[in-house]
Amino acid sequence: MKRRKFWGWGYEGEAAPPASIAFAEASLGALFGAPGERRSPPEEAQIELGPPRVAPPESLASLFDASKHERLVHALGRSYRDLARAVRGRFPHPPDLVAFPRTEEDVSRLLDFADAARVAVIPFGGGTSVAGGVEPQVGPRHRGTLSLDLRELSGVVAVDEASLLAEIRAGTLGPDLEQALRPQGLTLRHYPQSFEMSTLGGWIATRAGGHFATVYTHVDDLVAGVRMVTPRGALETRTLPGSGAGPAPERLVLGSEGALGVVTSAWMRVFRRPVHRAACTARFSTFEAGLEALRAITQSGLTPANCRLVDGAEAIMSGAGMGDVSLMFIAFESASLPQRALLDQAIDIARAHGAAIGEDDIKIASGTSSEREGVAEGYRASFFRAPYLRDELVLRGIFVETYETAAPWSRVRELDEAVRRVVASLDLGPHLFARRVTHAYRDGCAPYYTLIAKERDDASGEALWHEVKSALTEAILHAGGTSTHHHAVGRDVVVHHEKERAPLFEASLRAVKSALDPRGVMNPGVLLRELDE
Amino acid sequence: MKRRKFWGWGYEGEAAPPASIAFAEASLGALFGAPGERRSPPEEAQIELGPPRVAPPESLASLFDASKHERLVHALGRSYRDLARAVRGRFPHPPDLVAFPRTEEDVSRLLDFADAARVAVIPFGGGTSVAGGVEPQVGPRHRGTLSLDLRELSGVVAVDEASLLAEIRAGTLGPDLEQALRPQGLTLRHYPQSFEMSTLGGWIATRAGGHFATVYTHVDDLVAGVRMVTPRGALETRTLPGSGAGPAPERLVLGSEGALGVVTSAWMRVFRRPVHRAACTARFSTFEAGLEALRAITQSGLTPANCRLVDGAEAIMSGAGMGDVSLMFIAFESASLPQRALLDQAIDIARAHGAAIGEDDIKIASGTSSEREGVAEGYRASFFRAPYLRDELVLRGIFVETYETAAPWSRVRELDEAVRRVVASLDLGPHLFARRVTHAYRDGCAPYYTLIAKERDDASGEALWHEVKSALTEAILHAGGTSTHHHAVGRDVVVHHEKERAPLFEASLRAVKSALDPRGVMNPGVLLRELDE
Repeated sequence: MKRRKFWGWGYEGEAAPPASIAFAEASLGALFGAPGERRSPPEEAQIELGPPRVAPPESLASLFDASKHERLVHALGRSYRDLARAVRGRFPHPPDLVAFPRTEEDVSRLLDFADAARVAVIPFGGGTSVAGGVEPQVGPRHRGTLSLDLRELSGVVAVDEASLLAEIRAGTLGPDLEQALRPQGLTLRHYPQSFEMSTLGGWIATRAGGHFATVYTHVDDLVAGVRMVTPRGALETRTLPGSGAGPAPERLVLGSEGALGVVTSAWMRVFRRPVHRAACTARFSTFEAGLEALRAITQSGLTPANCRLVDGAEAIMSGAGMGDVSLMFIAFESASLPQRALLDQAIDIARAHGAAIGEDDIKIASGTSSEREGVAEGYRASFFRAPYLRDELVLRGIFVETYETAAPWSRVRELDEAVRRVVASLDLGPHLFARRVTHAYRDGCAPYYTLIAKERDDASGEALWHEVKSALTEAILHAGGTSTHHHAVGRDVVVHHEKERAPLFEASLRAVKSALDPRGVMNPGVLLRELDE
Repeated sequence: MKRRKFWGWGYEGEAAPPASIAFAEASLGALFGAPGERRSPPEEAQIELGPPRVAPPESLASLFDASKHERLVHALGRSYRDLARAVRGRFPHPPDLVAFPRTEEDVSRLLDFADAARVAVIPFGGGTSVAGGVEPQVGPRHRGTLSLDLRELSGVVAVDEASLLAEIRAGTLGPDLEQALRPQGLTLRHYPQSFEMSTLGGWIATRAGGHFATVYTHVDDLVAGVRMVTPRGALETRTLPGSGAGPAPERLVLGSEGALGVVTSAWMRVFRRPVHRAACTARFSTFEAGLEALRAITQSGLTPANCRLVDGAEAIMSGAGMGDVSLMFIAFESASLPQRALLDQAIDIARAHGAAIGEDDIKIASGTSSEREGVAEGYRASFFRAPYLRDELVLRGIFVETYETAAPWSRVRELDEAVRRVVASLDLGPHLFARRVTHAYRDGCAPYYTLIAKERDDASGEALWHEVKSALTEAILHAGGTSTHHHAVGRDVVVHHEKERAPLFEASLRAVKSALDPRGVMNPGVLLRELDE
């Protein structure tokens, strides 16, 4: 098995391609003046970890790995803040224990142990949280921490082809999941940027956002039934297409972020692999004109698989444009039906809102999946490799973080202006600020911002991160946006999320947590602040 | 204000058209031999109600109506079982009190009173529950019952046209809601069969199924934000297009059936009124062939607004056919885009599955909303008038009830056979049994059954109802279907629903109820069995 990098993205020995590093160095050198010195990645030997405060039970010893490497891999998530600390050798909350259950029963036994021993359990899928969801930072009443890694609980268990449903274990990584479905001509088509390093269980626990730009945007829409093991036992929801019987049980599991239990498997709604594809790129003279076109397309009832808007800065960063215009990528796809007519309707709407679209900008593909997948996978590969490049930027003293939200259309312009005002008001020096819209709804959309600046002279690398995160999230909440569209709440966003969460809904969640996790050992501090902190 | 009929559907003085009564009499006469004597509807004066066990507080006296008429109107829902009891003058659980709050503060005050006085509160929208959701049948620890009628809390409060959102008060009846949205060219397009007599709050509390046959099937999908008043205060969820922050709070309110609080208003996702319409009727030689076509259309990614399959018996009952074939109604509609190309794709799929569709079966309409609405409203009017006809059947000693579920495609055939076996095994005598599919999903569909038979010689009219309901629901659960797709759980289905509900989800719901309704006054016995029963 490939070893995970403990301080950065992905696997040991893998990195961003040299050409893309050189391109980034040149671009950022132009922006910031001299590029920063590249720090050497930290080495395990340099990092001191205290001894574990608790020991695993002898009866389950074979499930644990006490190595320093695994404790480090499970010590941090993958936000900029995490990377900034990691490259400085700062791992303030390593787990005392790391376990790799091989069956659902193992999970139950581990929870029994933790519950009895008052050890906090941090479920760990791919460890790619950008919200502090997997960092074992817990309050003082816990005697220790156990990072519970689901990677051995992997694979597609069963496929119901007539119903387009697949039962999949929670620890399955994105690529493994797709590889298992492919021989049957199926796909889950859920591609968060973390795809290569994240798991089905993590997507469900955090309500991850995927590839679809409209209608099926969150993994929520793909979950037909789910199993979660709690300290009180297993909770399984039935796999039903549209039950209206009482409050939807799967919706309590979705987004519970490990604070109620460990997602162990799910019946997922899968798709036949797309064959027909009709896509185009549209150019808008302003981002705002693009927003209006996006609203019109979404509200027309068209449901493109992709309909993303990027501003000039974002277009430069992704190599899609020169920065002079905003771009919109519109794509329709289907396993069985030609999509050209739908694309033409979208093009008409975009043009009516000022889009320039030439004949060359339109691509119609139709053939076997494997032929057309070449193109899509090329795009995806570069999308998925971006986090490797981020490691290199952080090693060079570059601050790089993303901020995402969602708001009704009537608030989007105002929200966007508020965000830009905040960025301008911060003392960032030369910086790059890019905007895109990743998902669109009939009633609103999900703006997504990338900020790149030079790090401040800061031993921990955290101060600037906190300052920007607080200022932007408060501005977003004030302007009518949500604290997170698809990055989850974790430990980092709780303080902001509390401002948008109805107090009685928090009381309800706490009541559920008391029922399922009476001793409060499940991912303490995530989603719900620990009351004894 | 028009007075409600206390023993049957709708308003006093309104009834099914004589022609449809005559048609039903002739058809059922042929089936059952001599038509039954028509019982006279009950009169208020014949019915004895005990005096209220509790008195309203003086400070809120103006909100109460102590008349016998209102107590009777609020004593029963509108299932066959309710009607069978009503026409026999049996109103076993009249509310002690009936209140009509005019503001959300009134609701809070009424809950304060009820909470302190240990009076059970039964939220009442349109009173059309077919699952015992509004019958004030509660356990002995409650000192009395209060039916809380939301009809004064009515109207569209605000419209956010850019976001296609409308804030609507919970007590708004379907027709009033549509009338208020119409001047702005908007519609909620949620048309359960109870439309004329049911309310937004009722739809939300019961996760009602509406007009859309695919994608937006339940009212759930139309709720952007919701307010619910509980004994502990108001819970309001933010109006956001796609927040992924923690478990979705609105999903806890949706389907809570008044057991957690009273829904008082919601921000709803509305639509521009459709202008373009492309529709057809397809004939299948068997219901099963129609099911396969329905599956193929839904799984193709097409999302017709209507795509309903009815068998021969159902076609006769609705006057749509002669009973020799199964029919599928397929319709696409849009406020801005011609729909013919999409219909043609659906037609190709249907034909590939054996459908006969002639050129005459295809209707393309395109024009102002008001022109084309004539047709749709004609259909709807007869759909909405059906419950008036049901009253006449019940008065003639006819048993008539519907049963609905949803199941994955892989289980639908088996479920359907199980249902038919059960019906055949019951001692029903001559009877009419009709099948349709009301909603379709990529992973399954929602079969819907109508059963018409002669009543047994039974003083209460209830015995046959219980026998059929139990036998069919158990068969459905056993075959992998849900206890209810859109009729809700109420008091009547709890005992079956408990078999499909995960015990830990029930524990979670009970924990939430304890947090929001610590004394258990909210709609006791609905959704959650009273533990002291």
